[in-house]
Amino acid sequence: MARPPLRVGLVGSGFMGRAHALAFGMAGRVFDLPLEPVLELLADANATIAAAAAERLGFRRASGDWRQLVADPAVDLVAIAAPNVLHKPVALAALAAGKPVYCEKPLAATLNDARDMAMAARAAKKVTLVGFNYLKNPVIALARDIIAKDEIGKVIGFRGIHAEDYMADPDAPFAFRHEPQGGGAFMDLGSHIVSMARYLIGDIAAIAAASVTVHESRPVKRGASARKTVTVDDQMHAVLRFASGVLGTIEASWITPGRKMQLAFEITGTKGSLSFTQERFNELKLYRMGRDAGREGYTTIAAGPEHPPYGEFIPAPGHQLGFNDLKVIEVKALIDALAGKSPAYPDFAEAAAVQAVIDAGLRAASERRWVTVEKI
Amino acid sequence: MARPPLRVGLVGSGFMGRAHALAFGMAGRVFDLPLEPVLELLADANATIAAAAAERLGFRRASGDWRQLVADPAVDLVAIAAPNVLHKPVALAALAAGKPVYCEKPLAATLNDARDMAMAARAAKKVTLVGFNYLKNPVIALARDIIAKDEIGKVIGFRGIHAEDYMADPDAPFAFRHEPQGGGAFMDLGSHIVSMARYLIGDIAAIAAASVTVHESRPVKRGASARKTVTVDDQMHAVLRFASGVLGTIEASWITPGRKMQLAFEITGTKGSLSFTQERFNELKLYRMGRDAGREGYTTIAAGPEHPPYGEFIPAPGHQLGFNDLKVIEVKALIDALAGKSPAYPDFAEAAAVQAVIDAGLRAASERRWVTVEKI
Amino acid sequence: MARPPLRVGLVGSGFMGRAHALAFGMAGRVFDLPLEPVLELLADANATIAAAAAERLGFRRASGDWRQLVADPAVDLVAIAAPNVLHKPVALAALAAGKPVYCEKPLAATLNDARDMAMAARAAKKVTLVGFNYLKNPVIALARDIIAKDEIGKVIGFRGIHAEDYMADPDAPFAFRHEPQGGGAFMDLGSHIVSMARYLIGDIAAIAAASVTVHESRPVKRGASARKTVTVDDQMHAVLRFASGVLGTIEASWITPGRKMQLAFEITGTKGSLSFTQERFNELKLYRMGRDAGREGYTTIAAGPEHPPYGEFIPAPGHQLGFNDLKVIEVKALIDALAGKSPAYPDFAEAAAVQAVIDAGLRAASERRWVTVEKI
Amino acid sequence: MARPPLRVGLVGSGFMGRAHALAFGMAGRVFDLPLEPVLELLADANATIAAAAAERLGFRRASGDWRQLVADPAVDLVAIAAPNVLHKPVALAALAAGKPVYCEKPLAATLNDARDMAMAARAAKKVTLVGFNYLKNPVIALARDIIAKDEIGKVIGFRGIHAEDYMADPDAPFAFRHEPQGGGAFMDLGSHIVSMARYLIGDIAAIAAASVTVHESRPVKRGASARKTVTVDDQMHAVLRFASGVLGTIEASWITPGRKMQLAFEITGTKGSLSFTQERFNELKLYRMGRDAGREGYTTIAAGPEHPPYGEFIPAPGHQLGFNDLKVIEVKALIDALAGKSPAYPDFAEAAAVQAVIDAGLRAASERRWVTVEKI
Repeated sequence: MARPPLRVGLVGSGFMGRAHALAFGMAGRVFDLPLEPVLELLADANATIAAAAAERLGFRRASGDWRQLVADPAVDLVAIAAPNVLHKPVALAALAAGKPVYCEKPLAATLNDARDMAMAARAAKKVTLVGFNYLKNPVIALARDIIAKDEIGKVIGFRGIHAEDYMADPDAPFAFRHEPQGGGAFMDLGSHIVSMARYLIGDIAAIAAASVTVHESRPVKRGASARKTVTVDDQMHAVLRFASGVLGTIEASWITPGRKMQLAFEITGTKGSLSFTQERFNELKLYRMGRDAGREGYTTIAAGPEHPPYGEFIPAPGHQLGFNDLKVIEVKALIDALAGKSPAYPDFAEAAAVQAVIDAGLRAASERRWVTVEKI
Repeated sequence: MARPPLRVGLVGSGFMGRAHALAFGMAGRVFDLPLEPVLELLADANATIAAAAAERLGFRRASGDWRQLVADPAVDLVAIAAPNVLHKPVALAALAAGKPVYCEKPLAATLNDARDMAMAARAAKKVTLVGFNYLKNPVIALARDIIAKDEIGKVIGFRGIHAEDYMADPDAPFAFRHEPQGGGAFMDLGSHIVSMARYLIGDIAAIAAASVTVHESRPVKRGASARKTVTVDDQMHAVLRFASGVLGTIEASWITPGRKMQLAFEITGTKGSLSFTQERFNELKLYRMGRDAGREGYTTIAAGPEHPPYGEFIPAPGHQLGFNDLKVIEVKALIDALAGKSPAYPDFAEAAAVQAVIDAGLRAASERRWVTVEKI
Repeated sequence: MARPPLRVGLVGSGFMGRAHALAFGMAGRVFDLPLEPVLELLADANATIAAAAAERLGFRRASGDWRQLVADPAVDLVAIAAPNVLHKPVALAALAAGKPVYCEKPLAATLNDARDMAMAARAAKKVTLVGFNYLKNPVIALARDIIAKDEIGKVIGFRGIHAEDYMADPDAPFAFRHEPQGGGAFMDLGSHIVSMARYLIGDIAAIAAASVTVHESRPVKRGASARKTVTVDDQMHAVLRFASGVLGTIEASWITPGRKMQLAFEITGTKGSLSFTQERFNELKLYRMGRDAGREGYTTIAAGPEHPPYGEFIPAPGHQLGFNDLKVIEVKALIDALAGKSPAYPDFAEAAAVQAVIDAGLRAASERRWVTVEKI
Repeated sequence: MARPPLRVGLVGSGFMGRAHALAFGMAGRVFDLPLEPVLELLADANATIAAAAAERLGFRRASGDWRQLVADPAVDLVAIAAPNVLHKPVALAALAAGKPVYCEKPLAATLNDARDMAMAARAAKKVTLVGFNYLKNPVIALARDIIAKDEIGKVIGFRGIHAEDYMADPDAPFAFRHEPQGGGAFMDLGSHIVSMARYLIGDIAAIAAASVTVHESRPVKRGASARKTVTVDDQMHAVLRFASGVLGTIEASWITPGRKMQLAFEITGTKGSLSFTQERFNELKLYRMGRDAGREGYTTIAAGPEHPPYGEFIPAPGHQLGFNDLKVIEVKALIDALAGKSPAYPDFAEAAAVQAVIDAGLRAASERRWVTVEKI
């Protein structure tokens, strides 16, 4: 194939690292890409782990040192799927080395770090993209299109939730996400719904919030009797005001029994409403007022070829995309940006803006007052 | 029939007045009541309107003056379905006349008024009941039972919504609900979800909120070009802390296109979750964690005879109650209380406590700060 | 009130008898009726049972003999909610006495009986109405309206189901429904979906079917070890051809675990589709093709005042009717017919036509061949 | 990687050809496969089309002649995604050349052809697999497991549907599927639900059916005024008896407006029920009777890592597989069979048995009688 290669260096091979590898492998088969991704180099905690993962995920080479990866001249793009604490050092090193960066969310452990990273990206003038993959759903593009075309009128309300239950077991062991700099449920899951809110509605200006740590300690490892104190939020509830005046609520929880992927929203406009949940992410519910007396109601729209880029995956409607397909669309957006075909979204600046909302929310909760969200 | 009569005097014959009349007529046929309701006297704005309504609704007599009704020795119970501004004077007069009172929600236009009414009821030692009829749903009783029996563990989160669209048309005319003392969406609809939150979870301690008047003026009457300024909230978003430490959000809106009766909640516990919407009020969704590997999920429970008092209406499951049936259950609760068989709930004190939450929420929104809810 | 009375004589006081009493009591409060129903006389198996039921349900008088009721000059209408075997003798006696008849479904135990009854009704020129109450749902009227107005094009397919689980327990005792003349699931429940199919689509011309008796014996009474052989169908599956050429399937079962009221259908037209289940009977799903690129899908329409006679019960949309309300609408239709305001539907002739389909289906199943449905 | 290669020769590059290519590309990244698929050779109608498709789909080589592909010594497996009429000649040639065959459904245009192919496969002792990919859903494996473990008791009823609307437009042009040997809706879509019925319930013994051609002619090509007569079924309704005595219905339609992928079933057992639709194929609804008084209902189970091989794609529950992932699972099953690790299912013999049901159904419809399904 005549496309120039894009040699990917991936740091990290866990859940999201593997998703990256699958997506890079798939993207060129689904889309007509301007560059051909090549799985060049995988770095992980040590050489042994890295070698095994490289073999499993199909990378040409492996390394036990991410610094080596960043410096490798045969790496065109640095993809970061490492633990959150590594996001900043790896990204800064990559940008310093003049390389574009594809980083998993949340961008950083703190707003300061995220701001630094956004500034470094701006200074380096390199493409950056942060993995808020749920934004890449064709049905979310449809929601944005419906809003843009004034089909639900002026937006007036937003309710956003991201609830899961993967920490609902009080004996789920202490992990990096429970460290103070790990962030808690609002950073881990809340950042998804905040990015969605920003994508669909716009800047968030101010926030009031309440949070709680329900399980105040966790075993140091699975089955251990020794426990470690947890101080990050398990659950967060916030009310917010967008810069446009739209009001809303946002919630995040990783201890909601029964919810596996309730990344959900309802958007109210003056002439209609939208309703969505990632639990059924190939569907969007739309209501438009005053069109059809006696036959009105929410319409359940199923994703299909008329909702790009669904048709690149499957030519027939109703067949459904899967989670891994969203990552493929994200990789396509990244590669288009790298080829100069379209701007990257969400980039480091956008992710820092998300972080500013998280930061404001956490302060609002701890200080029990409305907090103005810092502009990035 | 040998039951002693309960001679009802009803003030008001609109939507809720008619619902009262239907419910009093039905209750004795569905339930084995200790008292037999008799539709004795109907009062409305003037004698002509009252006479027509009395004829239509099956009352023996009519009056153009509610004071006459309150004073009538043949009236055993004063039922108030008049505009909100009349709730206080009618109720106080009835209590002063030594009569029990059945009053539509919201109890009063202001917290001060509601508190006065609650104190008057306490002083008079008369039964009072306020028409938060959605609490009377057998499925809500089931939710309460599930919580009480620890089936979902310790409650840790609450999300409550009451959204409708009956004011979504910007040209819906100005009405008493748009008067500053009318209260707005949070008082009109929010009071339902606040009463639900208190019934299922308990006292609300503090609240932060944001509200907005989207349609800032409305025609003085349908089709008029003259418009009147609206200052009450169309939409309210709040975050709250219950006295028990449970966190939650509450929203109210009467301008959410497509929502006709989204009185909805999700309750999170440490071991399970509940989900409900009045849009399908014969159903309750229940999740219980860790019971059944690979077969877990939300169970949709349909109302049936095992959920009292459903079986009094229909002996077979799945046949469904209607809105008017909830009012019949409310009347049954009222009559049981009048006969001394059980305490009345929600009484004036409870309704004043609901009002205290509304009042705190409105202040929190206008003052942009957390407000502690006043104890009643 | 100035309306002439309609003095009701009711035979039977079980589930459906009580539903009749409630409906007669409610109808005049909900609707502006041409006649005022009076609960005049209740007949049951013996005088003691009848007296207790009359007291409970609000009838003026009681009798242990339905013949007395039929002959009573103070009875204007004979309502039959007695066991199926009594439908024919009571109805024929009532018609012979020159009285209109309101009879529960199924009309009779056999097609011959049903035909006799339909002929007697025609000869007597009296109003008859059979209690297929699910037809009275405002949402079913909407479905009919949508079809009539060509909104889904020419109808081409029908799938109908009536499944419940009230006989799913193999130890549920033998009852009259298990007698050969009782009819089985297809007669008991299938008659509902057959009546729906006829109401919405039209005459059924031919049928092929398979049926099975899953629980081949049942205890003679609850808890008994002695068992009685059951020969009627527990479950019936049929394919059918309507007179118009529309094809479809119909199923009935009283042993489908989890189904409490799955009276459900999907109707396919050349331009759209309808989907309904009695499990959520305040909703109708509608799809119309080619109207709205990228925004198409099934619309869930909630019952509201624009779907008569919903508004007679509740002026606001989304509040929902209950099962007992459907019976109230049926009684209203009956009284309108008695007052000459509109034809009664479904009358004995229509119910006999339903029975002809049941009869054809049972023969088709036992003879393993297509059977032409007899014309009534 | 040390795995031996599996050099794939693919015939056809349309919708399903592309799905094959994607699946072969993905399978080795998702699963730890015994063989490494290599996209060796693509054959299509002519050399130009083939070359373009090979480039696009990532095949090493291209050919305008499938015979060349079958004969190519560097092709280890022949995959057939060509028009239905080619299934038989390609498959027979491949088997004759001693090669395993992976063929899209339906296996052949007629039962005779399918039987020939099954016999050839048996004679050749080569692995064959037919692309009824919906069987590969982890949630379908769960349904099978639930049945096998007696969790819903003895199966007693089955309702199966496959309805779409891709031929609902009367001006959709005439295509090979409208040729008499193309088969119609029952062959095209019905074969999916028949394969599902056989997989979950077992052999089908007899069938009665009715079918119709609603759109009796179609344009010779899009927009043409010349039309060609269609004789195949647009819609099929059948009742059937399984060899085990279970009764059921099956329907197929490609003209049901609004249905994009209603491959749906309800399975009734003596102790529980299952409900599924491909429209939400990451969910299975399960009801089990008598376990939990007052809390019973259908439980909606979301696909997760406890439902293999979901976890190979995504380690977290609720994230959802997509349509293309089902094809990846199918390819994994094929490769396991080629490596001798497990039998291939559904193979040519199974697909011929599906065809026998289709054939019996079409005859039953045209001859208006019950037809016994031929044993393969």
